Amino acid sequence: MVQGVANWNTEQTRDWLQSYTDDWVSFYRKHTSDGEVASYIPELLKADPDALGITVIGKNGMTLRSGDVNTTFTLQSISKVISFVVACMERGVAYMLDRVDVEPAGEAFNSIMHLEMKQLKKPFNPLINAGAITVTSILEGRTSDEKLEPMFELLEDMLGHRPELDVDVYESERDSSMRNRAIGYYLLETGFLESDMSVTLETYFKQCSIDVSIDDLARIGMILANDGRDPETGEEIIPRQIARITKALMLTCGMYDASGKFATYVGIPAKSGVSGGIIAAVPPRVRDEELPFLSGCGIGVYGPSLDDKGNSIAGIRLLRHIANQWDLSIF
Amino acid sequence: MVQGVANWNTEQTRDWLQSYTDDWVSFYRKHTSDGEVASYIPELLKADPDALGITVIGKNGMTLRSGDVNTTFTLQSISKVISFVVACMERGVAYMLDRVDVEPAGEAFNSIMHLEMKQLKKPFNPLINAGAITVTSILEGRTSDEKLEPMFELLEDMLGHRPELDVDVYESERDSSMRNRAIGYYLLETGFLESDMSVTLETYFKQCSIDVSIDDLARIGMILANDGRDPETGEEIIPRQIARITKALMLTCGMYDASGKFATYVGIPAKSGVSGGIIAAVPPRVRDEELPFLSGCGIGVYGPSLDDKGNSIAGIRLLRHIANQWDLSIF
Amino acid sequence: MVQGVANWNTEQTRDWLQSYTDDWVSFYRKHTSDGEVASYIPELLKADPDALGITVIGKNGMTLRSGDVNTTFTLQSISKVISFVVACMERGVAYMLDRVDVEPAGEAFNSIMHLEMKQLKKPFNPLINAGAITVTSILEGRTSDEKLEPMFELLEDMLGHRPELDVDVYESERDSSMRNRAIGYYLLETGFLESDMSVTLETYFKQCSIDVSIDDLARIGMILANDGRDPETGEEIIPRQIARITKALMLTCGMYDASGKFATYVGIPAKSGVSGGIIAAVPPRVRDEELPFLSGCGIGVYGPSLDDKGNSIAGIRLLRHIANQWDLSIF
Amino acid sequence: MVQGVANWNTEQTRDWLQSYTDDWVSFYRKHTSDGEVASYIPELLKADPDALGITVIGKNGMTLRSGDVNTTFTLQSISKVISFVVACMERGVAYMLDRVDVEPAGEAFNSIMHLEMKQLKKPFNPLINAGAITVTSILEGRTSDEKLEPMFELLEDMLGHRPELDVDVYESERDSSMRNRAIGYYLLETGFLESDMSVTLETYFKQCSIDVSIDDLARIGMILANDGRDPETGEEIIPRQIARITKALMLTCGMYDASGKFATYVGIPAKSGVSGGIIAAVPPRVRDEELPFLSGCGIGVYGPSLDDKGNSIAGIRLLRHIANQWDLSIF
Repeated sequence: MVQGVANWNTEQTRDWLQSYTDDWVSFYRKHTSDGEVASYIPELLKADPDALGITVIGKNGMTLRSGDVNTTFTLQSISKVISFVVACMERGVAYMLDRVDVEPAGEAFNSIMHLEMKQLKKPFNPLINAGAITVTSILEGRTSDEKLEPMFELLEDMLGHRPELDVDVYESERDSSMRNRAIGYYLLETGFLESDMSVTLETYFKQCSIDVSIDDLARIGMILANDGRDPETGEEIIPRQIARITKALMLTCGMYDASGKFATYVGIPAKSGVSGGIIAAVPPRVRDEELPFLSGCGIGVYGPSLDDKGNSIAGIRLLRHIANQWDLSIF
Repeated sequence: MVQGVANWNTEQTRDWLQSYTDDWVSFYRKHTSDGEVASYIPELLKADPDALGITVIGKNGMTLRSGDVNTTFTLQSISKVISFVVACMERGVAYMLDRVDVEPAGEAFNSIMHLEMKQLKKPFNPLINAGAITVTSILEGRTSDEKLEPMFELLEDMLGHRPELDVDVYESERDSSMRNRAIGYYLLETGFLESDMSVTLETYFKQCSIDVSIDDLARIGMILANDGRDPETGEEIIPRQIARITKALMLTCGMYDASGKFATYVGIPAKSGVSGGIIAAVPPRVRDEELPFLSGCGIGVYGPSLDDKGNSIAGIRLLRHIANQWDLSIF
Repeated sequence: MVQGVANWNTEQTRDWLQSYTDDWVSFYRKHTSDGEVASYIPELLKADPDALGITVIGKNGMTLRSGDVNTTFTLQSISKVISFVVACMERGVAYMLDRVDVEPAGEAFNSIMHLEMKQLKKPFNPLINAGAITVTSILEGRTSDEKLEPMFELLEDMLGHRPELDVDVYESERDSSMRNRAIGYYLLETGFLESDMSVTLETYFKQCSIDVSIDDLARIGMILANDGRDPETGEEIIPRQIARITKALMLTCGMYDASGKFATYVGIPAKSGVSGGIIAAVPPRVRDEELPFLSGCGIGVYGPSLDDKGNSIAGIRLLRHIANQWDLSIF
Repeated sequence: MVQGVANWNTEQTRDWLQSYTDDWVSFYRKHTSDGEVASYIPELLKADPDALGITVIGKNGMTLRSGDVNTTFTLQSISKVISFVVACMERGVAYMLDRVDVEPAGEAFNSIMHLEMKQLKKPFNPLINAGAITVTSILEGRTSDEKLEPMFELLEDMLGHRPELDVDVYESERDSSMRNRAIGYYLLETGFLESDMSVTLETYFKQCSIDVSIDDLARIGMILANDGRDPETGEEIIPRQIARITKALMLTCGMYDASGKFATYVGIPAKSGVSGGIIAAVPPRVRDEELPFLSGCGIGVYGPSLDDKGNSIAGIRLLRHIANQWDLSIF
């Protein structure tokens, strides 16, 4: 598919990839009509259902940007990756894996049932709501601000700027997310929570409401792809072991109960959010010699029209197409 | 851990890796007492509970072998990988993925419940029994011999010799595996089966009873690792797309309901069987430059003492140790 | 509703009740079009979907018969009552209740899931398939004929004639009931079965295929209503304790997963079968003084058009109407 | 067992029954050590684990009282009967049965799972927590006081005095019942609640905390037994249809997930609470001619030591014994 490309110079390659990307964003934008914008948080309904955008940041900072690249949106479930990383940095990996399992659940992201059905000793994994709320409860700090600060700092270290809270989304989320409150009380009763429940939920709703762009997501993806290091500066922002475990989690559990299909058809560690964002981290591989630009790249996608699993419908199809064309699967 | 190694010559490297492997096989052999040999198929109970062996076949055929390398044992669930590959080769990937999903189930390998609970349109994935039996029903052929022949041929292509059926295990399995018969009738009623049920089960019991060695498993793993090609001859034995999808499946669903933990702690596509075998396929990666021998290697493990999920207890710990030391995780 | 009736003589009362019954059979016959004849056993599909009939046998043998009273049909799940009674007579109540629980399951009659989900020590109750097959395995005898003979004898004692096996239905059932085979193997694996599985299933399919009329069902109901005694001869056919336990089971579990609604809206111990039969036993009550004819009456209903739970759709509505008008609820 | 008794005069009968009752209370008091006092609401832990008492109120007000008759305790789940009756009186039976099903759930009283698993359109029944909280939300009134007032008035009509709220238990319950809050939020999200959730839960916790004695329970049981009428005054306190439906519900769902066993072994409509109370309503029956005193009697039991289902362990055994001896089963 990409033969010959290896002989192009950097600029030629970038232009070729850019034009290719533009074509496919145009093509898949039409697919947004197959899905629907999330309605369970009223504020999210304001998103433009036709929006679709992608940023890829590869080697030497070479960047592809196409479609709706300037929209900002909230992290939503993508924040589960950030809170898990921070909790691992604060408490250690062993402590975390004692308290949250890392098994795909086979259930919807907001399921309570599996907790009861299996009489689980710990939530299935940190990327479904029950696990993510448990992780947030483990974060250090007695107030939501104290718990959030290390997340903001980690994001600032990765992005080069400090993202902001979208207060409207936070308030909308806080006032409407009854299932998460149900999960919170369930976790409280079973003794999984390590902080006050209302502080935990306030923190959780806030972390979900942090505003980002697809450029931001692509940078985070790139750093995870490179085992926690910023490839430009060489600085380790996330400890290597934590970065790698996080990618394993993203691959097995990152796309809700479509994670297995995403692993099979796309093959890249990724995490989606109901705002329509997707973060993807492409680990460097030997095969990447053909397209060295993409070795260890990070990808950010935005497309708020969702499929019935809660993933960006056009975003997933775009990622699948690109991954197959550019041979990005880790398998 | 392995710094300096890169400067060694091939022989030095091999010797160093061999001695290292010997040490860890000795060490983890003691862990076999933490588990138990599978009892639900009477014939399997004859296995030596203390056995542990490993074969690694890497670049240029360089081979490490340690521990109980000469025992043969039956494929059991590892055969699900073979039947899935053959079914994809016979019917095409799209046909197969229409009929069997590729989602981790969050349930034990022999669960019927999830079929009923979710009113599933198709079994969760080809590596749990319900999915594997469905796959076997899809294989071409009207008799078990007709269905098995392409599996034997594929194995012969990969191994260089034709493996044999262990008739005692087959008969023991056929006479004792009541849960699989329950699953078979359940699938028959829901209309998932595409062949006669008794032929399907006979085939399934036979494919589980094919005898192999860890050398055999390591060769299969190596070919999967190299996207279906025999790296020595360059011949494509399994089509590239099928090989890669199979590795994705192994990573997300290969170790029963401990697959997520294996992905996180070990990070290699692998499949286990209740006879105690594990097959692992290590895709080539950029990082492998440090230990080029291991780039695209295949691993076979045997250790019939199982943990409570049905995986070789010492085998998993040995793999985890080696993967961490040699940096084999795909993430 | 029935005031004044108490002063009528017997003949007047009977005529009044008969004309009343005729009216309501005509009325509810139209409701048969809201349901469908069972299709999962091909032979059952031959039933006339518009059929509806009822027999009531009350005090002193006074009998009401209305609608399709001459059709015969197979017992199907109603046979679970007979096999449970026989097993209790053979083994004792304590033995049986140690092996089969008596809890409503909250699941469909052919569910396997609940066995696995709860890791049950015994099936939920003798009136769902898993429990009924377990009961049949406990019946004395090594062949299906030996196991069936006491059921035929009990039926003969109650009916005054020996019913016959409908061989066509039996063969249709044997060849099509894959879910019951799945349940059989599941029970075999969990160790619940006390006889050879194929003998058990053969017996089960045969007991389901015993031919009866609504007159037969009404007689059985009357004997259960009178605690196991034939009120005309005074003879005890079923031991009192067994008859009463059986009625309790019928009330809580007799109408599949609509048992609670039937208890609430109708309030009579009853058991339905997918052939469209219903047997009801009305225990004598103080209130019955108003309508002494109905004290301790038995009711047989036939209406093969079923609702989505597997109960006769017109039969249930007819019973509900009559129970309310004649104040038959035990509550 | 009780033959000859029918010829005794009233006083002789009462004395005989009283001495009989005293014997069995003494006997079953020893069984309290097989269970444990409820611990999930801290205030309940203060109960005397050895306590056991019973009151039976029969015809003409004849009363048996034995054991710990003077202790008061809170209604807990018994209040679900009261709130269901009041809601039916306020809204009509049809309205209620549209919003809450009447099927036994096969699950523990505090299960959330079944709501999610079945994607139920309504909670299983009004006597498990999810259903009872839904019922409380349907009660008229915008504050907990407005919602509670008709319950207090109904209780006053039945008891002849107005019971009081145990504020300590209420506060303990409000502060500790996290599972009920989880259920509340779950119901809120699924749209089942018809009032503000916090008002609903406050009302629910308060209705559970109403103080009663076993004399009170026996009176309520007697009025339910007599289809809602006070047999002494003839006054209808609960409409007949509601009283009878309520008894059907109690029989099928009143003893948590041991309801089927209670129906089978005891056969009386009853409802238990985790404080150790049980209310039982014995409908009049023809057989009662032998022991006319017990026809339409009500029974109150107290024994705070609970079995693993949450029912009074000695209370259930005492009831079972008495029901068998006095032939109280409705079947």
